Amino acid sequence: MSASFRAVDPRTGEEVDPVFVCATPEEVGAAGERAWRAFGRFGSLPGGERAMLLDAMARELEEVERELVTRASLETGLAVERLEREFARTVFTLRMYAEIVREGSWVRAAIDRPARGAAPGTIPGHDVRRMLAPLGPVAVFGASNFPLAYGVAGGDTASALAAGCPVIVKGHPSHPGTGAIAAGALARAVETRGLDDGVFSYLPSGGAGEMEVGALLVGHPLVRAVGFTGSFRGGMALDEAARRRSVPIPVFAEMGSTNPVCVLPEAARERGAEIEQLLAGSILDSSGQQCTCPGIVFVLDDAPGRKIASGLGARLEAARENVMLSRRVRDGYWKRAQECAGVAGVSCTPSLEAFARAQPAASGPVVAPAGLLETTAAGFGAAPTLREEVFGPAALVVWCADVDEMLAALGGVVGSLTGTVIASAQENGAAGRVLSSLSARAGRVVFNGVPTGVRVAAGMVHGGPYPATNRPESTAVGAFALERWARPVCFQNVPQGMLPAGLREGAGEKG
Amino acid sequence: MSASFRAVDPRTGEEVDPVFVCATPEEVGAAGERAWRAFGRFGSLPGGERAMLLDAMARELEEVERELVTRASLETGLAVERLEREFARTVFTLRMYAEIVREGSWVRAAIDRPARGAAPGTIPGHDVRRMLAPLGPVAVFGASNFPLAYGVAGGDTASALAAGCPVIVKGHPSHPGTGAIAAGALARAVETRGLDDGVFSYLPSGGAGEMEVGALLVGHPLVRAVGFTGSFRGGMALDEAARRRSVPIPVFAEMGSTNPVCVLPEAARERGAEIEQLLAGSILDSSGQQCTCPGIVFVLDDAPGRKIASGLGARLEAARENVMLSRRVRDGYWKRAQECAGVAGVSCTPSLEAFARAQPAASGPVVAPAGLLETTAAGFGAAPTLREEVFGPAALVVWCADVDEMLAALGGVVGSLTGTVIASAQENGAAGRVLSSLSARAGRVVFNGVPTGVRVAAGMVHGGPYPATNRPESTAVGAFALERWARPVCFQNVPQGMLPAGLREGAGEKG
Repeated sequence: MSASFRAVDPRTGEEVDPVFVCATPEEVGAAGERAWRAFGRFGSLPGGERAMLLDAMARELEEVERELVTRASLETGLAVERLEREFARTVFTLRMYAEIVREGSWVRAAIDRPARGAAPGTIPGHDVRRMLAPLGPVAVFGASNFPLAYGVAGGDTASALAAGCPVIVKGHPSHPGTGAIAAGALARAVETRGLDDGVFSYLPSGGAGEMEVGALLVGHPLVRAVGFTGSFRGGMALDEAARRRSVPIPVFAEMGSTNPVCVLPEAARERGAEIEQLLAGSILDSSGQQCTCPGIVFVLDDAPGRKIASGLGARLEAARENVMLSRRVRDGYWKRAQECAGVAGVSCTPSLEAFARAQPAASGPVVAPAGLLETTAAGFGAAPTLREEVFGPAALVVWCADVDEMLAALGGVVGSLTGTVIASAQENGAAGRVLSSLSARAGRVVFNGVPTGVRVAAGMVHGGPYPATNRPESTAVGAFALERWARPVCFQNVPQGMLPAGLREGAGEKG
Repeated sequence: MSASFRAVDPRTGEEVDPVFVCATPEEVGAAGERAWRAFGRFGSLPGGERAMLLDAMARELEEVERELVTRASLETGLAVERLEREFARTVFTLRMYAEIVREGSWVRAAIDRPARGAAPGTIPGHDVRRMLAPLGPVAVFGASNFPLAYGVAGGDTASALAAGCPVIVKGHPSHPGTGAIAAGALARAVETRGLDDGVFSYLPSGGAGEMEVGALLVGHPLVRAVGFTGSFRGGMALDEAARRRSVPIPVFAEMGSTNPVCVLPEAARERGAEIEQLLAGSILDSSGQQCTCPGIVFVLDDAPGRKIASGLGARLEAARENVMLSRRVRDGYWKRAQECAGVAGVSCTPSLEAFARAQPAASGPVVAPAGLLETTAAGFGAAPTLREEVFGPAALVVWCADVDEMLAALGGVVGSLTGTVIASAQENGAAGRVLSSLSARAGRVVFNGVPTGVRVAAGMVHGGPYPATNRPESTAVGAFALERWARPVCFQNVPQGMLPAGLREGAGEKG
């Protein structure tokens, strides 16, 4: 039966129980209608009540933490400790949005009272008041690599609910059990709070019906926005589908990223061993399957630089059996690593032959070797394929003759979530120039650190120029992520009693 | 010679001197490169210095006000008094953005200092600080109907410069003289302030080369965003072209709008004559060529409702010779009016035959008759063409049996810049329901007024759901319009001395 499917344990490559059933087209349609009906009340609920829902969701998730983390580890191959941290981040995020909507200023109220006798440009001096209003039902497509923090109860779901938008989650096919447990917790919270069940819906998807669930969801006339975390191809396909609707809707897609790291020469000399260890740890964390994993490392072709690269190569070569999230991810990694290793002038540790021995198998453990690719600045500039993400435990070292060549090579780096500079206190001038170039092509610049490890805070930007995202003006993490699900509405000369609460006298802020 | 063109005086239909020459492909390319070079310094200039540029631009424009208004009236047929108001709004807008960037909080700085021992979700407790940074060169495509406020020195130009983006304006083919005068003033201000001349460029466009200038500009690899005000077709074509680039860029297109008006029964009874006069004035203002012109009027099919409609019909019928902006606009109006008048069940004052007598002529004054179309709620629901804008001095009355039918008919209204309800103090319940429906489909809801007349203020939203704009999250007018030209960048653990000024200790605000 094509509508049923199971998860695979990547550590063994075997299917695991239970059987899940993919949502039908009718179920997708009904979820959209339920969400739309729920929006009528949920969209104008006081922030405090939405906050209570988010808090209740965090509590319900805590009730099933052990079950959730255990199942997520089984379905993704990610370590339990890593998933425990991800779980903590997930409930922290729900409570952070609860606090934000309880406080209320996220709606960005701006009130201009009638201006009489004011400057000519302000005439007519109407009373105009604006605030953000929720868009309507939001469809969430979660990621394979963060089954909790970017999953059913992740940041997109939390921020959309906080903004007043009912949420419909398309379940991820590789961790259906994790999705079902989280969805159960969220649905219980909705029920406990006495809200319409259309506020949150979960559509299991996998097997032959998976693509159809996604296509129907993005095409559903009552869905008003989409949140997506995943591959470039997947994100842009959704974006295109959303655009072809009779009324286009926004898709906020966080896609691939190369996360360039620039190691400046003095830093390499002063603390090469530390840098090598730091980078290897960041690249190998979660088998390299993080969207902020360092993918391109620019170093000088001098003794300290070569030492870092050879140490890094040895560390990656030693990591032969990295458990990957799924066969799809493993095969994708393998294909991209081969493409890059096959470029003229690119060398590879382990050798391409060793990589080849790790060729995808249809059965057995879903593992792959880590690898370090190397090329020159000229080689990097000449091969566009090297500028694209390799999702997995591989990095590309780009050899530069000097900092000027490094800066020139950086010009070939495409939009990225992050950009990192590693510098000593003696090279502030060069570090400043590199930071400036990185900030023109990344959402977040990191100084003397690694890009992995995203802090959930208002000061965070988890986003960046195309192709890292299709919406560089937004962030998927932190306080400002709420604004993705809202648009401003202005009320002109509307009597106090008919204004939304946030715009009445005493409630708004002067714009 | 195909590269040269002249303006037409719509009052006579005759071409007027001087001859203008359309920008060449080389000039478009060079403008992009000059803008990119200028961005290096201009993008990181302190807000106070950008403010001084905007103030200088306002002053330079004031030096040429008479010349500008006179020429604009000649080239557009708009009344001098109307253009004087528009001029005042234009310089007010420049000075408003100057004030905003001088004050500086528009960059939305958020600072999160290292969190040690904080909640698990905040770990790693890096110091993260974000603020908005300008995108780069912005191309501005101005409107035919507001040659000043949405023209060369209009809101898009002013807000992009305020945000730190160099601007390249594509001149509008119907008012090249107006564009040249304004461009001269802005260029003098750039020179006076000692800035790189790439900060502002003007590309005259018209004649056979016009489309190519636009296409090259939106395709220029160094152009990073586009502002557009005009037709739905034009806006969506630019949006599509921007999307097909190797690196897509955002287009902020403010397009057509039907601006529905709901007249509730008690208001119609109490002050029908006043409402009729108010609506006629708003519809006929500037020959109906305002993006906020009321296009659809919902009234009850009772005696007061019929009185308003017949009065409105008489007033529009009397306006036989409305001077239109250009032959293109006049012909478009005529075509759309015919399409709507031809729908089964739609009646028309003046009659379709009278409309036909006003058929476009290739010579002579560029004028068109006003007209009132009428249909039932059922007729409105059945004919999608009636939901689209008729740009010009025409409105459609939709007869409703009662307020419930009015609310149901409103469901057929597509995204609009504005929505208006006219109600008496006795019908707050119905007014609230209508307001709620309107706010779901408009950027601005107006109570007991008309939608024409846009106040320039933070509380304003000049935007709205598709197809009124392609970016409902934005506004083209007011303080928040700046944000269109920027994206957030996060600085993680960056030393104080390398942070942008707005993120250093003492400068930022807590997020």
